[in-house]
Amino acid sequence: MTPTYRSPSPDPTMAHRTADATLVVRGADGSPLAGAEVVVEQTRHAIAFGNIGFDFIGYANGEVEATPDSPFGGAGPELGETLSKLYFDLFNTATLPFYWGGFEPVRGKPDTARVLRTAQWLVENGVQVKGHPLVWHTVTADWLRDLPTDEVEAAQRDRIRREVTDFAGVVDTWDAINEVVIMPVFTNEERMNGITRLCLEKGRIATIRMAFEEARAANPDATLLLNDFDMSTAYECLIEGVLEAGIQVDALGLQSHMHQGYWGEEKTLRVLERFSRYGLPIHLTESTLLSGHLMPPEIKDLNDYQIPSWPSTPEGEARQAEEMVRHYRTLVSHPSVQAITYWGLSDEGAWLGAPVGFVRADGTPKPSYDALHGLVKGEWWLAPTTVRTDDEGRVPVRGFLGDYRVTAGATSASFTLDTAGAVSAEVTLG
Amino acid sequence: MTPTYRSPSPDPTMAHRTADATLVVRGADGSPLAGAEVVVEQTRHAIAFGNIGFDFIGYANGEVEATPDSPFGGAGPELGETLSKLYFDLFNTATLPFYWGGFEPVRGKPDTARVLRTAQWLVENGVQVKGHPLVWHTVTADWLRDLPTDEVEAAQRDRIRREVTDFAGVVDTWDAINEVVIMPVFTNEERMNGITRLCLEKGRIATIRMAFEEARAANPDATLLLNDFDMSTAYECLIEGVLEAGIQVDALGLQSHMHQGYWGEEKTLRVLERFSRYGLPIHLTESTLLSGHLMPPEIKDLNDYQIPSWPSTPEGEARQAEEMVRHYRTLVSHPSVQAITYWGLSDEGAWLGAPVGFVRADGTPKPSYDALHGLVKGEWWLAPTTVRTDDEGRVPVRGFLGDYRVTAGATSASFTLDTAGAVSAEVTLG
Repeated sequence: MTPTYRSPSPDPTMAHRTADATLVVRGADGSPLAGAEVVVEQTRHAIAFGNIGFDFIGYANGEVEATPDSPFGGAGPELGETLSKLYFDLFNTATLPFYWGGFEPVRGKPDTARVLRTAQWLVENGVQVKGHPLVWHTVTADWLRDLPTDEVEAAQRDRIRREVTDFAGVVDTWDAINEVVIMPVFTNEERMNGITRLCLEKGRIATIRMAFEEARAANPDATLLLNDFDMSTAYECLIEGVLEAGIQVDALGLQSHMHQGYWGEEKTLRVLERFSRYGLPIHLTESTLLSGHLMPPEIKDLNDYQIPSWPSTPEGEARQAEEMVRHYRTLVSHPSVQAITYWGLSDEGAWLGAPVGFVRADGTPKPSYDALHGLVKGEWWLAPTTVRTDDEGRVPVRGFLGDYRVTAGATSASFTLDTAGAVSAEVTLG
Repeated sequence: MTPTYRSPSPDPTMAHRTADATLVVRGADGSPLAGAEVVVEQTRHAIAFGNIGFDFIGYANGEVEATPDSPFGGAGPELGETLSKLYFDLFNTATLPFYWGGFEPVRGKPDTARVLRTAQWLVENGVQVKGHPLVWHTVTADWLRDLPTDEVEAAQRDRIRREVTDFAGVVDTWDAINEVVIMPVFTNEERMNGITRLCLEKGRIATIRMAFEEARAANPDATLLLNDFDMSTAYECLIEGVLEAGIQVDALGLQSHMHQGYWGEEKTLRVLERFSRYGLPIHLTESTLLSGHLMPPEIKDLNDYQIPSWPSTPEGEARQAEEMVRHYRTLVSHPSVQAITYWGLSDEGAWLGAPVGFVRADGTPKPSYDALHGLVKGEWWLAPTTVRTDDEGRVPVRGFLGDYRVTAGATSASFTLDTAGAVSAEVTLG
């Protein structure tokens, strides 16, 4: 028997993310640039540090007033300039909302233009964009309820093809389907939604196959995720069934909304151990940590906790900053983690009104912003560093995997470190 | 789209289990027996009313002393005569233990002869026998721990083939594999057992395939079950993966150990609704209801609750009897339920020492015995009934699906009612 499943081990030294490169710098003529001062600096992380981009839909579209009751949530456009500066200095990836009920509240009138403009604006600012989600039973289109199940399926297939096609080249990463564990047994509504009905009759795996096949056909280069909040054995069993069924999943999405308290290192590592054994990259798709009081532990569906005001507090902000550092250190230490997306930049318009953001509702950053910045753009980042090449044009470059630039006077060149450990690289200044 | 999954609806009138037959009785010469008094009686239920047969291993083998620390549990042989009379008057199916650690504690020395003799004795007494389980991580053979994983798999395959072959024709129903949801993440032991390791490396579905394929090859006529205590979405997801993988499962086993309290009708029906939608027969493989105090709700693994004495009480026995009737009525009302096996005849030697039995440790029946007997051999049973055939030899026979006998004077014949509703049947007295 060939063992199939093995979990990689975490490494707090981050050796698996660090290249120890010998870079040969050449001049425009191709000869080694010997004994010269050059500046080496990192320009991008290979690992995706993401957040939601819901706050920017109005701003990126030049709107000046907030959309009341926006189906996407998020802050109003008046905060856009402040928030975007903070965003671009910390995050390299954004998740945009494609909730069917908000995206196409009236059948045949999708909100493609506004969301596409937002996605393009993010890409122009160096941010990769992910779409969330193509199939989900919550916030799905109300008008599906009145269709027979075979028409629900046809509409769902059409919608997947349309969005993936319309956004290809701008949005090439998708949560193909969201929360399938609960999908067919979801009962928290008066009248069953169309997607729950579809999944109940079709079965979970056939529904997942539908999502992945349609999205793959529309954009063969897309990175397609299975995403869930259920960290129990149920999600493991679902994943094993999907893999046995031969459905090509590019990454596993794990949500980690921690409204009821930080998981801690032990639980987090145990979750990563359990879900990394399938050999697929892990995306932490939805992480949150509160800077206010915690949600009571007896709440089962987080959506059931609705309070008029949920303030961010000084003690909460200190705790959030400390937990943020522990959480990101733990995740980054695990070799399978390829993306970490936080679920909230600003408290303004945050899901459930919870103070989950890195930025208060007034636009000022919380300590958690500086704390994470200290890792992502500090400890794990090679700031511009002046070094002198040796006689053969070589300089050592040690840093996190990602993109780098070397500059000598008025000339510069880029290079990428994509393999951990001792490597060699070469650039020609131009 | 063709809808795949649909749950049948329960029917408290039991119409789905009741035949309304017109029986034509013929004499030995083939002509209708007109205007004659005949006695019609039921001899067997189509639905399996089962219990464990662990109590009988010593008794059926003519042993006179209890085996101290029997790996199978159960009462000692001195109660055998009393218990077997009670058993045969109520149950038509028995589950015998094949826990690998008890069945083959020393590699190469399986306890085949004793268990086979017990099975044969049960069959001789009109009881069908089921084997439990062929693959399980708990009470598995200790000696697997020291084998490399590929040898664990080879040993497991050999053991499945051996038991299914040795018992074919006597034991033709098997829990092919037990509790796979937790199997690879089972951590309640100091050193990981061989089967958990196998399942962790191979994956749940490949392990299930191994169990079913080996058992099927050894006995193509066997009824093979997937069995679990996990009634959450995890088991649903596992089942969907198994079915998508094309593994032929003959029935789904649902455990229902209710040491922490009776589920009640609503939960029971919801569980049946969820697990009946795959179109497979449902076996309630392990049901228990206590006649003493309940286990505290905070206990997660029932095995963790160990107390020196757990008495059956008069109040507890009254409650158990009432809940037993409600439980069986609910289960029998659901068309998908094909077997209901209770997990304990006598309190003596019961799992966890809990007072789950129909019979007290001293061998006297509890009210629950009489209550269930009143259903199985009363309300749901056609006792010998004298009726007169009409001019064409016809008598109406209305009763639960199963086997029947008609007697006229010194002649008799058997017939089977296997279809609910209005049917016709015919017998020739011989």
